[in-house]
Amino acid sequence: MINVGIIGATGYAGYETLRILLSHPMFNVTCIVSKSFVGQKIAEIYPNLYNVCDLVCDELDYDIILGKADCFVVSLPHGASQEAVATLYKAGKKVVDLSADYRYENSSTYEKTYKLPHEYKDILEKAVYGLPELNREKIKKTSLVANPGCYPTCSILGVAPLLAEKLIDTSSIIIDAASGVTGAGRNQDLMYQFNECTENFMAYKIASHRHTTEIEEKLSDIAGKEVIVTFTPHLVPMKRGMMATIYATLNNAIDSEYIYNVYKEFYKGEYFVRIKNSDTLVVTKGVVASNFVDISIHIDKRTNRVIVISAIDNIGKGASSQAVQNMNLMYGLEETLGISQPGTYL
Amino acid sequence: MINVGIIGATGYAGYETLRILLSHPMFNVTCIVSKSFVGQKIAEIYPNLYNVCDLVCDELDYDIILGKADCFVVSLPHGASQEAVATLYKAGKKVVDLSADYRYENSSTYEKTYKLPHEYKDILEKAVYGLPELNREKIKKTSLVANPGCYPTCSILGVAPLLAEKLIDTSSIIIDAASGVTGAGRNQDLMYQFNECTENFMAYKIASHRHTTEIEEKLSDIAGKEVIVTFTPHLVPMKRGMMATIYATLNNAIDSEYIYNVYKEFYKGEYFVRIKNSDTLVVTKGVVASNFVDISIHIDKRTNRVIVISAIDNIGKGASSQAVQNMNLMYGLEETLGISQPGTYL
Amino acid sequence: MINVGIIGATGYAGYETLRILLSHPMFNVTCIVSKSFVGQKIAEIYPNLYNVCDLVCDELDYDIILGKADCFVVSLPHGASQEAVATLYKAGKKVVDLSADYRYENSSTYEKTYKLPHEYKDILEKAVYGLPELNREKIKKTSLVANPGCYPTCSILGVAPLLAEKLIDTSSIIIDAASGVTGAGRNQDLMYQFNECTENFMAYKIASHRHTTEIEEKLSDIAGKEVIVTFTPHLVPMKRGMMATIYATLNNAIDSEYIYNVYKEFYKGEYFVRIKNSDTLVVTKGVVASNFVDISIHIDKRTNRVIVISAIDNIGKGASSQAVQNMNLMYGLEETLGISQPGTYL
Amino acid sequence: MINVGIIGATGYAGYETLRILLSHPMFNVTCIVSKSFVGQKIAEIYPNLYNVCDLVCDELDYDIILGKADCFVVSLPHGASQEAVATLYKAGKKVVDLSADYRYENSSTYEKTYKLPHEYKDILEKAVYGLPELNREKIKKTSLVANPGCYPTCSILGVAPLLAEKLIDTSSIIIDAASGVTGAGRNQDLMYQFNECTENFMAYKIASHRHTTEIEEKLSDIAGKEVIVTFTPHLVPMKRGMMATIYATLNNAIDSEYIYNVYKEFYKGEYFVRIKNSDTLVVTKGVVASNFVDISIHIDKRTNRVIVISAIDNIGKGASSQAVQNMNLMYGLEETLGISQPGTYL
Repeated sequence: MINVGIIGATGYAGYETLRILLSHPMFNVTCIVSKSFVGQKIAEIYPNLYNVCDLVCDELDYDIILGKADCFVVSLPHGASQEAVATLYKAGKKVVDLSADYRYENSSTYEKTYKLPHEYKDILEKAVYGLPELNREKIKKTSLVANPGCYPTCSILGVAPLLAEKLIDTSSIIIDAASGVTGAGRNQDLMYQFNECTENFMAYKIASHRHTTEIEEKLSDIAGKEVIVTFTPHLVPMKRGMMATIYATLNNAIDSEYIYNVYKEFYKGEYFVRIKNSDTLVVTKGVVASNFVDISIHIDKRTNRVIVISAIDNIGKGASSQAVQNMNLMYGLEETLGISQPGTYL
Repeated sequence: MINVGIIGATGYAGYETLRILLSHPMFNVTCIVSKSFVGQKIAEIYPNLYNVCDLVCDELDYDIILGKADCFVVSLPHGASQEAVATLYKAGKKVVDLSADYRYENSSTYEKTYKLPHEYKDILEKAVYGLPELNREKIKKTSLVANPGCYPTCSILGVAPLLAEKLIDTSSIIIDAASGVTGAGRNQDLMYQFNECTENFMAYKIASHRHTTEIEEKLSDIAGKEVIVTFTPHLVPMKRGMMATIYATLNNAIDSEYIYNVYKEFYKGEYFVRIKNSDTLVVTKGVVASNFVDISIHIDKRTNRVIVISAIDNIGKGASSQAVQNMNLMYGLEETLGISQPGTYL
Repeated sequence: MINVGIIGATGYAGYETLRILLSHPMFNVTCIVSKSFVGQKIAEIYPNLYNVCDLVCDELDYDIILGKADCFVVSLPHGASQEAVATLYKAGKKVVDLSADYRYENSSTYEKTYKLPHEYKDILEKAVYGLPELNREKIKKTSLVANPGCYPTCSILGVAPLLAEKLIDTSSIIIDAASGVTGAGRNQDLMYQFNECTENFMAYKIASHRHTTEIEEKLSDIAGKEVIVTFTPHLVPMKRGMMATIYATLNNAIDSEYIYNVYKEFYKGEYFVRIKNSDTLVVTKGVVASNFVDISIHIDKRTNRVIVISAIDNIGKGASSQAVQNMNLMYGLEETLGISQPGTYL
Repeated sequence: MINVGIIGATGYAGYETLRILLSHPMFNVTCIVSKSFVGQKIAEIYPNLYNVCDLVCDELDYDIILGKADCFVVSLPHGASQEAVATLYKAGKKVVDLSADYRYENSSTYEKTYKLPHEYKDILEKAVYGLPELNREKIKKTSLVANPGCYPTCSILGVAPLLAEKLIDTSSIIIDAASGVTGAGRNQDLMYQFNECTENFMAYKIASHRHTTEIEEKLSDIAGKEVIVTFTPHLVPMKRGMMATIYATLNNAIDSEYIYNVYKEFYKGEYFVRIKNSDTLVVTKGVVASNFVDISIHIDKRTNRVIVISAIDNIGKGASSQAVQNMNLMYGLEETLGISQPGTYL
């Protein structure tokens, strides 16, 4: 068994990583770190863990935690993650960082987007962007994975085949996305209070969400040229689940069957990516509590546009289970180990 | 008081029209017609009406109902509405039709979209499209109003100023919309069952929703040339509320303030259209249970696109309260009578 | 028009009172007071009020507000309300207090329950408990109404006929109640965050909720002897609505029809109390956004118990619309003025 | 691996059993039977299973299915289950029946409750009531388990220690319970439509729910004398989760600590029963998607009543995962195999 520590274990992504690892045959969580709940059992915060997990929250004291685990999942706010990741990495640990701090190849894009200097550019260079379907071999060889954002995971996997196969006008991409409320984290803002969220739908951070530049950097890599997108996130009154509805103009008139086969071929052998016929509805509850990505592709012949629907669980494939997928790869384990099960649907 | 009949009163749009009219100072519902509940009190179906409304459902027998009211709201499925509206209209009644049957100027577009012949083209020619903010004077003079669809109301009011002022490339319009579940009506399909809908988000009828051609016909009128749009509806796990997130490419670089003023000017004096600053969040619960339309406009400078957020209550401004707005106009009453109140928010 | 001030207008009960009064033909809100939002428009907090209500929040400065209104609704936390109500009352204003501060006849019960001294016992003596169906004549003559708690309103109206007619063992009353989340107010506690509340049901403050003593004092009055009850509240993942399921042992075997008639007779002429047949389902959405109380009564012959279902809107009849009902009575207006409409159902 | 067939696999309980067994190390589902979906893949109905489970629905043809599996879970409506279970049992299969058909020791109680004759009384005599915490040894030895109802599971486990230890007046038991909407099954009734269920709470089948007699038969066994209870179920706007709030009068004054210890002792060694301190909130989301039962016990000193809160997942411990627990026992496997994980919480 490989001993794992989770920094920021009481937030939703940290907690979900813990929950997944409790059933994992090769990883054993031996250390959880929290800022606000030091000395408390995680089961006092998440009552489902009562009598199942007896872990107690440590403070972020490296003298203590470095001896407790070989691999760390860091689930801290961006900015705060920079130093924690650097410290763990320098100490020879394998690290998966859930924050944005090590996601960008171009540190100045990070600095402009997050309005923060990057203090560990040497380590940033070592980081691998943890999207296994596009980056598998690099992930296998690295000790530092920057786990992608939820919107980027959902969007990039949806668009990638179109760019790789040069099927679309790269300046035409519009990503209209929607997320469940766990996307905001374990957050006490009034905006996320039940009475405010339920029976409500809204767009937010229109043309200004920070995930936009992350999406663009990765899409530009795939396209081999700069890709600029319009990105609009929405908040949906549900806990979990995320959908990107992606629009782009086709370079040539192609039909549904053709493009379906492009996607099938591009994601051939990928267990977690499920390409659906254009007459099958993709629904977020088909992927919730799983690591799957469900994608359908539709041609709007009248406007010569392609519309891609891409659905994930924002805290599954969009955060925690993707972190475990990356850990499996980093340790040379079967990629699907502990995360192969379907979602709950109900 | 003006006597009103509602045909199809037990469906959600018919019911909501009744509920609104119960508090209206000038309209008095004297007749409700239902197919499935003949002889039953409406209060047996909608328990909130117990001891408040004693109306009993009639069957659709013109000998009976023509004598009971001077104005009829018809809330039947498309197709079924054709004959009912024609009969009432020919009998000299004022009619507001909530179906799609009389919404199209071009009957062949209707026939292609709904895959039905139109049997009353002479009467179709008399119908006025009931979007008061764009069509007020015609509505005042007609006896037959075709009440717009919910998605069209939300979309057209969001796009109209851009087209009227020729600010956008007319071939670039993408409408990504989302609706609460009442949009599907009082519908027993498994898909709309609580366990299936809650905690779920999905796109449906991608590039094939029937409201697309309705939107296009009206936008083409405004643009003075043919407008084709990409339209994708989504289903949100909430009862009421609708949002359109509309994308278009600007003809020229303009800023947020400029475009805000274009909208303010275009909708000057319109009580029900509220133009918000681009830094104010538009939320569906701001309009639910009201006749308001909340709109914010955003410029994505990097891509030279405009993004318009337009929110309505799908069964309010998207159906029932807009029907009452039209009735007020048809009878020369104050346009806001009985529908001026804000939504409930909670 | 009577000028009204609302102290604590940005909380849910204060806001809802404002929303109701915006459509009231005789009351005109001229002053709203907030602690946290001084100088801000209420429409910035509740976007449904945009362009509908231009009121700006005042601070609680009596020099300013006393001149602005003749009647005040005080919606402050218990304890904080004591002084505010006393000040307004002494200044000759009519006051409806939504807090618990003036609800108890016995100040020591209040002090034990709320663990606070009562500093204005002389004024407490003047206060009338604002449950119009039981206390109408006193309310008409007072200048100070203590508006009942939501659970007490729902429970007392459900039990009253049983006690008044001496049909039950007074020591056998168990009240099992459930409330929507607005019952917790505009509250940022993590417990009321969307992700925590949704898809969850829980009992809380079991055998220790503060509304218990309020219920007991009023039931004891009706019974003419001390009544002690077991009271268990639950939290339901919905915004609005409250139900009390009340159990008591019958003194004698009686049947459903008999007891139905007892309730019909007891609440004869009461517009807001709707007694339903035992074969009709009482549902909270039948009363949400209204001032109605829906009650059904059931006999469990096998155990000789009566089961009463009583449903209200916790912030309607349980707070704001009941406050308006009391204001109507205090001013000699028609009791149902501005609050007679049915709930929204959808 | 043991081959398992599921009769009625497309309903919620059948599906959930399948989903659990997909991750079970010893059971292998080889056969699924459906009435409405013969020839269709289960993954067409439950999209989360796409590419995960390729099973196709068989019709209920014993010639086919008897050869496919050694153990059957029968998830048919009551009545329909009688013959299916008898046939499978007589063919030498191990059977877990999720319906009510084989739950009663007293067939006449069954016949009165379900208004159906029991055609297989000889087989009924062989059936063991599958509540492992109370009936473990018998389950280990039987080939036919009648899986308990969801309300009975939740209620009986909550009350059992009180009766076993003779701590309460057996005539004083009131069970006030609440269930998520999956309790109604995959049901197209309008009552369970999203718009009807959401934002609504209701009691139903007051003093007349069929689970009452099931609860009574089992509690009478424990008490050693006839126990009659009052039982009121409620419907909560959530998918999964169930809570029973149970009231009884204590024979003697005892305190919280004493009774807590009684429960701890009674359920000593039971992995799935978690007794919580009376100051810990029991919440349904603590058990959803798990086989756990969370119980807290509270003393209302003023009325000398005990209040027990018991929470389960209605389709987990209340149906499918309890079926698997029973199957584990029937096959001599570790009781917790495949069902030991905590719920999802989020």
